[in-house]
Amino acid sequence: MAHVLGQNQYGKAETRVVRITRSGARHEIKDVSVSVALSGDLDAMHLSGSNAHCLPTDSVKNTCYALAKQYGIDSAEGYGIRLARHFVAEVAPIHRARVRIEEYVWDRIRTPRAPARATGAEEADHSFVRRGGEVRTAEVHWDGKALQVVSGLKGLVVMNSTGSEFRGYLKDRYTTLQETDDRVLATEVTARWRHSFTGAEGEAEPGWDTGWAEVRDQLLEAFAETYSHSLQQTLHAMGTRVLDHQPGVAEIRLQLPNRHHFPVDLEPFGLRNENEVFHAADRPYGLIEGTVHREGAVPAIPVE
Amino acid sequence: MAHVLGQNQYGKAETRVVRITRSGARHEIKDVSVSVALSGDLDAMHLSGSNAHCLPTDSVKNTCYALAKQYGIDSAEGYGIRLARHFVAEVAPIHRARVRIEEYVWDRIRTPRAPARATGAEEADHSFVRRGGEVRTAEVHWDGKALQVVSGLKGLVVMNSTGSEFRGYLKDRYTTLQETDDRVLATEVTARWRHSFTGAEGEAEPGWDTGWAEVRDQLLEAFAETYSHSLQQTLHAMGTRVLDHQPGVAEIRLQLPNRHHFPVDLEPFGLRNENEVFHAADRPYGLIEGTVHREGAVPAIPVE
Amino acid sequence: MAHVLGQNQYGKAETRVVRITRSGARHEIKDVSVSVALSGDLDAMHLSGSNAHCLPTDSVKNTCYALAKQYGIDSAEGYGIRLARHFVAEVAPIHRARVRIEEYVWDRIRTPRAPARATGAEEADHSFVRRGGEVRTAEVHWDGKALQVVSGLKGLVVMNSTGSEFRGYLKDRYTTLQETDDRVLATEVTARWRHSFTGAEGEAEPGWDTGWAEVRDQLLEAFAETYSHSLQQTLHAMGTRVLDHQPGVAEIRLQLPNRHHFPVDLEPFGLRNENEVFHAADRPYGLIEGTVHREGAVPAIPVE
Amino acid sequence: MAHVLGQNQYGKAETRVVRITRSGARHEIKDVSVSVALSGDLDAMHLSGSNAHCLPTDSVKNTCYALAKQYGIDSAEGYGIRLARHFVAEVAPIHRARVRIEEYVWDRIRTPRAPARATGAEEADHSFVRRGGEVRTAEVHWDGKALQVVSGLKGLVVMNSTGSEFRGYLKDRYTTLQETDDRVLATEVTARWRHSFTGAEGEAEPGWDTGWAEVRDQLLEAFAETYSHSLQQTLHAMGTRVLDHQPGVAEIRLQLPNRHHFPVDLEPFGLRNENEVFHAADRPYGLIEGTVHREGAVPAIPVE
Repeated sequence: MAHVLGQNQYGKAETRVVRITRSGARHEIKDVSVSVALSGDLDAMHLSGSNAHCLPTDSVKNTCYALAKQYGIDSAEGYGIRLARHFVAEVAPIHRARVRIEEYVWDRIRTPRAPARATGAEEADHSFVRRGGEVRTAEVHWDGKALQVVSGLKGLVVMNSTGSEFRGYLKDRYTTLQETDDRVLATEVTARWRHSFTGAEGEAEPGWDTGWAEVRDQLLEAFAETYSHSLQQTLHAMGTRVLDHQPGVAEIRLQLPNRHHFPVDLEPFGLRNENEVFHAADRPYGLIEGTVHREGAVPAIPVE
Repeated sequence: MAHVLGQNQYGKAETRVVRITRSGARHEIKDVSVSVALSGDLDAMHLSGSNAHCLPTDSVKNTCYALAKQYGIDSAEGYGIRLARHFVAEVAPIHRARVRIEEYVWDRIRTPRAPARATGAEEADHSFVRRGGEVRTAEVHWDGKALQVVSGLKGLVVMNSTGSEFRGYLKDRYTTLQETDDRVLATEVTARWRHSFTGAEGEAEPGWDTGWAEVRDQLLEAFAETYSHSLQQTLHAMGTRVLDHQPGVAEIRLQLPNRHHFPVDLEPFGLRNENEVFHAADRPYGLIEGTVHREGAVPAIPVE
Repeated sequence: MAHVLGQNQYGKAETRVVRITRSGARHEIKDVSVSVALSGDLDAMHLSGSNAHCLPTDSVKNTCYALAKQYGIDSAEGYGIRLARHFVAEVAPIHRARVRIEEYVWDRIRTPRAPARATGAEEADHSFVRRGGEVRTAEVHWDGKALQVVSGLKGLVVMNSTGSEFRGYLKDRYTTLQETDDRVLATEVTARWRHSFTGAEGEAEPGWDTGWAEVRDQLLEAFAETYSHSLQQTLHAMGTRVLDHQPGVAEIRLQLPNRHHFPVDLEPFGLRNENEVFHAADRPYGLIEGTVHREGAVPAIPVE
Repeated sequence: MAHVLGQNQYGKAETRVVRITRSGARHEIKDVSVSVALSGDLDAMHLSGSNAHCLPTDSVKNTCYALAKQYGIDSAEGYGIRLARHFVAEVAPIHRARVRIEEYVWDRIRTPRAPARATGAEEADHSFVRRGGEVRTAEVHWDGKALQVVSGLKGLVVMNSTGSEFRGYLKDRYTTLQETDDRVLATEVTARWRHSFTGAEGEAEPGWDTGWAEVRDQLLEAFAETYSHSLQQTLHAMGTRVLDHQPGVAEIRLQLPNRHHFPVDLEPFGLRNENEVFHAADRPYGLIEGTVHREGAVPAIPVE
């Protein structure tokens, strides 16, 4: 009995491209890791061993470099759209491209002296320090008809040292947790927000970089300003805050692991722990995931 | 304008449960990391801060321990089914449970001497060494009506030092790769196979442990025995081999990163590299993904 | 024949302590991972199984929490000195303590709104975002007589996009590298600087936090301002810069992995890469290590 | 005031070399990661920017490949000795070489069928599965006069599910731990054993591969066969066992993190946990380190 080849894709993952733009003495840098997955007319490749329809993953990698040279890397999203359109348009057997990008952000080193600095005020012209911590993400899906762009971030670690409680919850026979009206709330934000931008002719392209920075600020502000009854409620407040201020965002998904901070019991030592000393635990952790979308938003294209 | 709360779930991730069964002097151990995600009637929790419908993730963790005590951990799949059914049946607001398990396998230490050994031939009674390398996985989804069980493994690293070629592929303007009729093919297998088992009354439960070991053998054998024109073709041969021998498996998904082994150019040193010395590269890597399913198989339930 | 028990130590590693100081509405936080290693009169424990001289590692952990409560965590170094002195003074069989600390730095979230902000200008009172990237380190060694304090950092990733060359080097029969007069120089700095502070009575304790921030600035400035003939030369410039400005530092050790950025060959595609597009490689990497010390400095106590 | 350049070294780290030996249809593979550090007459390089004495790290990498081709990789230790001797003998300014190797072990895939198998019984000729888990290590130090070879392993995870107690320990004011006469003892062994082999003319070279396998067995057996009063006592028994059986080993160092397995309190659920259900914790962990050496052994050369 014949079995059926289902969904499949292939490509080059984690090509690390560093692009330097030299405008005189002052350099700009973009540092990204690009993962491309292609699908299309590839049945024969799997079944008979014919590679006639297969563009090598090595060529996919070369394309990432070549397009970075020719067009620069304006933004992760813009670069991803260009790559996705390229493969579907230029490589006949390919009907669908998914491009995932991680971007690592760098700041200029501050320095008062030449030769590091000739132009900017207190900032080096061509010396950088990596910001570290969080990573900016982008995912582009293009099948020749529908364009879907999802921006995001991961590794944004935040903490409220008060302003959080957890009580009034369901108790079953396995419940031993004590209610609390003052706890530390800490999490590592992973967020992905889908744009309504479709790339149709005449449609204005969003300002990807400014938009990303605004969303990051809104996530931080909502986290800080919400008195929290649960991490779920905080998640909803963060998602809603972004939709309220970003008309071009159709949907936002958040993953918030609850990084538990347990107050240490100091009573055996004759000490009273007034929410001052905590053990930050690794595992297990609560994991809260949720989506908030604009009413009537077009559903997301599922991307494998 | 009100925004809409979409798909959401929460639970306890990565609870590490070690279960020892003591049958006299001879112990058995199971070592798993369990991640439970629950969804149901949780809108109020997100919107108003009411926690009345929320079973704490701490209780979810306690349940993992308590059920491990009461029923043991027969297999990752069996334990996962029991947990999933528990939450949907016993916690009123919960309508759907997803349980993901990683299992770490241990072997007995071989030793000829007491006190380590009293019973088994050359094997210690209660001393173990972790097998390391690959991890066994299981995912159970249950919503009160449909049960879906997916077994798997990850971290299985394999290499063919010959018996692999790559040529006859599509060339575009960015193609520089040279064709080869003898290359090293190495990959790290991630496989997930979905069972047709539905858990209906009277339906016999598969032998999860023996089935898992058989699939692992079949994946290894197909990898070794296939003369490879591409990693895609090898992937298809591996998937087909499993479906051919496992009537209870409806579908198998494989992810095969191409761990490139580049022959080192030794000509500048007056040496001829006859496929003997390779540089094993980290990144970037080709990534080949594909699914093979039984004709007419019920489609998978998408699990978030 | 009897074998000899040599150097040994034990303790609790990676206790994660988060200490919150609440001065009214405005909180301060310190987030550290502490590893304590103790040695002393412990032969019987190894040889005969008597534990009479062994303070459990669980008590070591409790001590980290209790002292954090009683004295706060003023700085990583101060906290480490207090812990080291405690174990040697209070636990009779212990003659030597080594305390290693990693500190994770947090910034306040900026927010214009209550309730997050009541006091500081634009800064939240009790909401924080982790700075990420680099980690501050401290190591304290105390044996009842000699105190040795080593401050440090790791994970500080920097790049010069020009101002670096590498030529005039030794060529042997295995040399194929081409000389270059313009390359990207990138590294991830690990630095450890030893203080001349001995903790003797009457000796003023350095300002650990301000000193640490100054050294970090000096390392960054020296990296940016040095036209580099080699990473070794840059290392020496960085170490010298610190000694020049920090009279209390006796010695500095630097580890600088050369994070190679290879210009991509775009000529096959008819493109000219004028140091604009780079492949950032993972492995292998050059590793440059060196120490610069003040003339006549007391040698470091070797710490195992 | 001039500062002094102290200890320094440089080289290429983590060169990943895969060496295939083709004896007809049946292949042998060796898979290693090599890190070379060189020191010598390198002051001018740091101080003046002259690179005349610096062999590029790229040439170091090339040498690793070239020697693997010319002489094969018989064992990690043999390959390391050859590399270390090469740099000191052939590169004039280099006076000292340290070579560190990690070896990843592969097993043959078992298969009954051609074309995978032509020669060995049930074992594939050129198809391999990585054993995973532990890593074999070797470190060679050579300065033209003294040769020091240290073999080792890391990542060997073991567990005794009984046969371990911990009581009779010192209690101070911060001690809350309860004594136990039956606990799980689990650890991840890192071991390094120094050979008395000096490489003098006429001295027979040890059988590195068989010796390594014997030491691994002896460590496992001693762990399994020792009724444990403390992890320190188990450490001592493991070290002594190796010295007892390996006349060529001068010294062995062991690092044993105590991977705590805490019995879960099930009493709130009306269940009695008879050492059956454990929470395996990540951090913090006890860390036990110790050395056992042969009486009168030459002290180790400190290697930076």
